[in-house]
Amino acid sequence: MTRTVVADYKISGVSERRLRQSACILGSINYDSKNMSANNAVSAVLTHVDRELDSSLDRLFALLRIQSISTDPAYAAQCRKAAEHVAADLGSLGFDASLRPTAGHPVVIGKSGNGVNPRPRVLFYGHYDVQPVDPLDLWQTPPFEPRIATEHGRKIIVARGACDDKGQVMTFIEACRAFKAVTGKLPLDITVMIEGEEECGSKHLFGFVRDNAEELRRDLALVCDTGMWDAETPSITTSLRGLVYEEVRLTCADRDLHSGLFGGAARNPIHVLADILSALHRPDGSVAIPGFYDGVPELPADIKADLAGLDLTPEKFLAPIGLKIPAGEKDRMLIELISTRPTAEVNGIVSGYTGEGAKTVIPGKAMAKVSFRLVGAQDPDKIRLAFREFVRARVPADCTVEFGNFTSAPAFSVAFDNPALAKARQALAQEWGKKAVTVGAGGSIPIVSDFKAVLGMDTLMVGFALDDDRVHSPNEKYDLKSFHKGIRSWVRILAALAAA
Amino acid sequence: MTRTVVADYKISGVSERRLRQSACILGSINYDSKNMSANNAVSAVLTHVDRELDSSLDRLFALLRIQSISTDPAYAAQCRKAAEHVAADLGSLGFDASLRPTAGHPVVIGKSGNGVNPRPRVLFYGHYDVQPVDPLDLWQTPPFEPRIATEHGRKIIVARGACDDKGQVMTFIEACRAFKAVTGKLPLDITVMIEGEEECGSKHLFGFVRDNAEELRRDLALVCDTGMWDAETPSITTSLRGLVYEEVRLTCADRDLHSGLFGGAARNPIHVLADILSALHRPDGSVAIPGFYDGVPELPADIKADLAGLDLTPEKFLAPIGLKIPAGEKDRMLIELISTRPTAEVNGIVSGYTGEGAKTVIPGKAMAKVSFRLVGAQDPDKIRLAFREFVRARVPADCTVEFGNFTSAPAFSVAFDNPALAKARQALAQEWGKKAVTVGAGGSIPIVSDFKAVLGMDTLMVGFALDDDRVHSPNEKYDLKSFHKGIRSWVRILAALAAA
Repeated sequence: MTRTVVADYKISGVSERRLRQSACILGSINYDSKNMSANNAVSAVLTHVDRELDSSLDRLFALLRIQSISTDPAYAAQCRKAAEHVAADLGSLGFDASLRPTAGHPVVIGKSGNGVNPRPRVLFYGHYDVQPVDPLDLWQTPPFEPRIATEHGRKIIVARGACDDKGQVMTFIEACRAFKAVTGKLPLDITVMIEGEEECGSKHLFGFVRDNAEELRRDLALVCDTGMWDAETPSITTSLRGLVYEEVRLTCADRDLHSGLFGGAARNPIHVLADILSALHRPDGSVAIPGFYDGVPELPADIKADLAGLDLTPEKFLAPIGLKIPAGEKDRMLIELISTRPTAEVNGIVSGYTGEGAKTVIPGKAMAKVSFRLVGAQDPDKIRLAFREFVRARVPADCTVEFGNFTSAPAFSVAFDNPALAKARQALAQEWGKKAVTVGAGGSIPIVSDFKAVLGMDTLMVGFALDDDRVHSPNEKYDLKSFHKGIRSWVRILAALAAA
Repeated sequence: MTRTVVADYKISGVSERRLRQSACILGSINYDSKNMSANNAVSAVLTHVDRELDSSLDRLFALLRIQSISTDPAYAAQCRKAAEHVAADLGSLGFDASLRPTAGHPVVIGKSGNGVNPRPRVLFYGHYDVQPVDPLDLWQTPPFEPRIATEHGRKIIVARGACDDKGQVMTFIEACRAFKAVTGKLPLDITVMIEGEEECGSKHLFGFVRDNAEELRRDLALVCDTGMWDAETPSITTSLRGLVYEEVRLTCADRDLHSGLFGGAARNPIHVLADILSALHRPDGSVAIPGFYDGVPELPADIKADLAGLDLTPEKFLAPIGLKIPAGEKDRMLIELISTRPTAEVNGIVSGYTGEGAKTVIPGKAMAKVSFRLVGAQDPDKIRLAFREFVRARVPADCTVEFGNFTSAPAFSVAFDNPALAKARQALAQEWGKKAVTVGAGGSIPIVSDFKAVLGMDTLMVGFALDDDRVHSPNEKYDLKSFHKGIRSWVRILAALAAA
């Protein structure tokens, strides 16, 4: 394959001195020689990464061509093919790699190291499966025919999975490959676990982790499935919000009623539900359920100052979705609201007549789905019970309410004093020429909570996705810069973790 | 056709003296000889009604066999057949009867009288169309094969339309037939208008009434499409609540959002809508929209006392639908709440994810349908605008709201001093042996408002339906007693209206 890729960005911005590589493969690349003098081995590995970028892309493209859509049984063979592809690739790097069966798609496990490497021993987690591609007609080119394109002056890799998670996974594997090529070995004991069901809920992974706890329990987990703060600013995700997801089913009359005949005397479940949902939040935006904030920590002052420094304004965050005014707690920064504060959201509601035109019905039943994002030490079970009590107290005596629970997962957070965190931040800062921020992710990655709960491991989530990567959507992309500097970032992080 | 019908009830309870008729057609019937002496002509007509009940049923059954489902285009020919059937029947009674075309199903108009009859000249309104019959498998016998059955010791006529409205219409036509048979003429100038689109909104009737206002403008309208207070107590419906029906479409973000990424900062339209809908009612159950109660009258003391005398308890009214506690204004009788007081009801709501399981979405849009039942002089346009203002004042500045209006109809009420009302009450009391109550109907019959607004006519709504008639449902029925005494009631009412 011949390809001419011009990297249109600068690698590391610390030094002004640039070396223009006369790379035959990679048309043009700038890098920072300062790091090279600081650590010869790392510099050599980084140089290798730069020189071999086109080969790295070839390998990524080969993986992207495999149609590993996990949620559609029609693609089961393709999922297996992707697993075999990854296992073979790991095997070529000296990993003891195998496919491990589950009731669903197999898990790829690759083990490297003899126990004499420096600590920490790490478990790298990622996934080889991808989202479905519909609506297919919105793709500019076929989703499983990866290509390099230019968009807004940036080189991008376009394909389903380019970012999520094949591109991100390959940043780590290519970093391992470069170490192996230059130094003949990996700097740490590394276990790799690449699953095939992340896009359909990782439902068999939880049992797999429990069943193989001894094998998977390392000192630290690494995950590459998150994003940069912005295109210039590296980020480590240090917390994930937990989730309690409840369904409320309210019954008043035992049938739908004519609003002319019964209106005025028969209890309307939509009114009851509206009163309950309206009462969930106080006028100041806080959640009114008694005890809801038990276990919610205040951030350390320095972390709070870091967050303030990011200056996430409504204009930056809300304008792209057509909004201007932050909802939620009035006395909090926007970035706190979406990452380090708990929430209550109604995710769905339905009752009565919702078709075209008018129907004068008083419904007998009403339903709402309500979820809570949790932080810190909030107890999912306590929140669930407190919510149910809050609802029951507002249901008239002649009506009934039933509940369903779909998720009860606690929040996850890395200890801010974990030494691996400081090392990774430093490594990222060296690569990107900018302080790496620690952020809380608003969403959940349930397996990360399990790494903590079941395996007792902290997880560093480092990823290079950008907000405009169209993850889960047509024309998914990954910036070439994310891929290239992502590999380089892992080289630096692995070296930093291995350093005394 | 041979049929043996045993009327298992007593006709009029005023006198203790009973005559057992040796009727070959109607097995057994009791009637009151006192009325016969009071008015020989009326008595003779009533006697004729009793003797001919089996023939009357034959004619009703012939009409019930026609599958005049108006809302389904597949039944258009059957609707026309029903119209032709009714027109022919009216023609046989000396009416100048014809089918009048509309853009939908035809209207049957029958005119009788030469202008020398006593006043008032009356317009009788009913409809020949019926509701669809689904779910068909819940019918015990085919819906268009009418039959006499016994249920809870009562004889009932079972068929689609047995009550609504073919059975009720035929009580009036059979009363006319009896007058014609016994006296050779009708006691009043009578125009009959039987439409074929009542069950699909009467959409062409409004224009028809406007286009034929001169022809249809009589002194009084009579409608037989309502019910008894209970199986023993006749009722005249003297008011109908008006209706304003609005749709509220709220937009916050310009797309659906992930609640993990945006939860806590992005406005949730379900929260906004819940706040608005919750604010619609005050804690005392009254409607909180400014000016909402403008034009709501207090009932005259005697009417209020009559209503109180009906003693409509929650046990009677709410227990059958599985409820115990009246909703709505706390300081009102239950019967007021459902008939003479205005209401605000949410008829439907939908937003976000409403399927099985969990989806962590913050929706971009939310929709609710909200309707208001109006009484007295409440102005539909003012209510509509006040509601919209109430909503807009509660929508955050960065969100938008759109409204749709489906109905804006004022309330209707007969003047309590209309002399026709007193005469009809007296006639019904004579027939049923019990004071006839005047009630407000909670629902709307929009054409009655038009009779007032366009033709300047009051309407007396007298009907013999019972609460358990399964109108619009499988196994619709009409009590044989309702049919028989309904005919007799119209005989008495027409005679009373004709009396000086």
